[in-house]
Amino acid sequence: MPERSIQDYGVQWYSRGSAPEFKRDHLAVEEPLEIRVAFTRNGVAVTKPVSVTMRTPGHDPALAVGFLFTEGVIPSPDAVTGVETSPERGASIVVHLNRPVALKHLERNFFAASSCGICGKASLEAVNLNREVILPEGRPRWGVADLMKIPEQVHEAQSTFRATGGLHAAALLGAGRELWAVYEDIGRHNAVDKVIGHALITGRHDFSEALLFVSGRAGFELVQKAIMAGIPAMAAVGAPSSLAVDLARRYGFTLVGFLRNGRFNVYSGFTRIENGIPCKL
Amino acid sequence: MPERSIQDYGVQWYSRGSAPEFKRDHLAVEEPLEIRVAFTRNGVAVTKPVSVTMRTPGHDPALAVGFLFTEGVIPSPDAVTGVETSPERGASIVVHLNRPVALKHLERNFFAASSCGICGKASLEAVNLNREVILPEGRPRWGVADLMKIPEQVHEAQSTFRATGGLHAAALLGAGRELWAVYEDIGRHNAVDKVIGHALITGRHDFSEALLFVSGRAGFELVQKAIMAGIPAMAAVGAPSSLAVDLARRYGFTLVGFLRNGRFNVYSGFTRIENGIPCKL
Repeated sequence: MPERSIQDYGVQWYSRGSAPEFKRDHLAVEEPLEIRVAFTRNGVAVTKPVSVTMRTPGHDPALAVGFLFTEGVIPSPDAVTGVETSPERGASIVVHLNRPVALKHLERNFFAASSCGICGKASLEAVNLNREVILPEGRPRWGVADLMKIPEQVHEAQSTFRATGGLHAAALLGAGRELWAVYEDIGRHNAVDKVIGHALITGRHDFSEALLFVSGRAGFELVQKAIMAGIPAMAAVGAPSSLAVDLARRYGFTLVGFLRNGRFNVYSGFTRIENGIPCKL
Repeated sequence: MPERSIQDYGVQWYSRGSAPEFKRDHLAVEEPLEIRVAFTRNGVAVTKPVSVTMRTPGHDPALAVGFLFTEGVIPSPDAVTGVETSPERGASIVVHLNRPVALKHLERNFFAASSCGICGKASLEAVNLNREVILPEGRPRWGVADLMKIPEQVHEAQSTFRATGGLHAAALLGAGRELWAVYEDIGRHNAVDKVIGHALITGRHDFSEALLFVSGRAGFELVQKAIMAGIPAMAAVGAPSSLAVDLARRYGFTLVGFLRNGRFNVYSGFTRIENGIPCKL
């Protein structure tokens, strides 16, 4: 893998029975790539954007050609005459074709504030949160032992996952560490929307003391959803992506990762963690 | 969770040192839901489709309201006056609003044959594979022991995952069980596009004897990508979704799940498994 598929971040490391430490952690890089196609139709050169995908940088020509083929944009790999990459990060890639392709059948009649939180957002800068969000400074404070208990607390409230092994769980917890809602879904973003939507429907509109828990990885789109809802903290069983940490730091959002087996890392928003050690990032 | 979030499937169960058995397995249901908003603008009633998401059925009102709020379509939960669900499966949900919302800023200038394979596809029926795909009947045949070796074989070829804990891996194997390509990405669909794209770029255009391996769950969109490429078999470390199995069975595609620790389940395309026991599904 190319070097830039991994990025270093300063984290606060907590482990049951040990003093917190400042460490460095390697995270998988997540960055947008725009895929375009270029061809000639009736003697006119045409370039069309096809999709934006959040991917780990590296092997972009393989990604673009594979995408166009597996999504049926090109009928066969013979259609590709060349691939042009742009040297900047988060840039676009142009796949040159020896024939025009009809993009019409793939056009959408409706917009996609997509469920996956990715499509249609070309870059971190393009993520206009579309809402004034100011998270409460340094509160609420989460105790280390309370955080470590959450996975078990959620697991007890879950049902389907144990039966199928195929679902993501999300939970919303109030300031008193009580569970407001736990939902499971095949899509991690859906589970998050369900817990937030359930809270809204049942009359909870203030998330300024809440914490969002997710059973999997902490991707960019989940941090984005939490911030949009005014939630100041998220804890994930899995790893965060680089872009998730970048977004969390921009908003002073507390991001906890690898929360399992009596340990966790804090990537951002340290002041909401009890006894959080100040450190230089 | 409502009953219909789990569905029963007949599977062939293999475990090292045991005779294969026919069992029943519970899978998480994955079905499309269209989210629409309804409001009045200048005295005219308007209904607009907003998004299609692949979700686990159940708690659709919470999902729809949460989605609209976390994606910034509605400025506050007060905007919601009611939610109307349709009783059929895989149907749509209408969220009634007390004010018009501008969908313009969310409109996309380009179509999305989305990287996540979901957006813009309203139902299983709408998945027009857009290409004549006929998979080779009953071949190649995969040995049970060979299949069990794949996760280890791929793991040895991986690099970034062990450093970050945050990536999905995909691999493409040829008929001689040799690894054609292994890629990792923050998005499982990207890892699949990369291995297929790499094969195409390096001159491999015939996938009729290949097998796709993925380190995570076997979602619908991955089976779809494999079939589009003419690959007849996929093996996943995680669980398949119900829709993935439905699509696999429709195309006679071999779908293996829970491939880890010397065991696996076969959900579809049994004739490509050595000593596959015939059974009624």
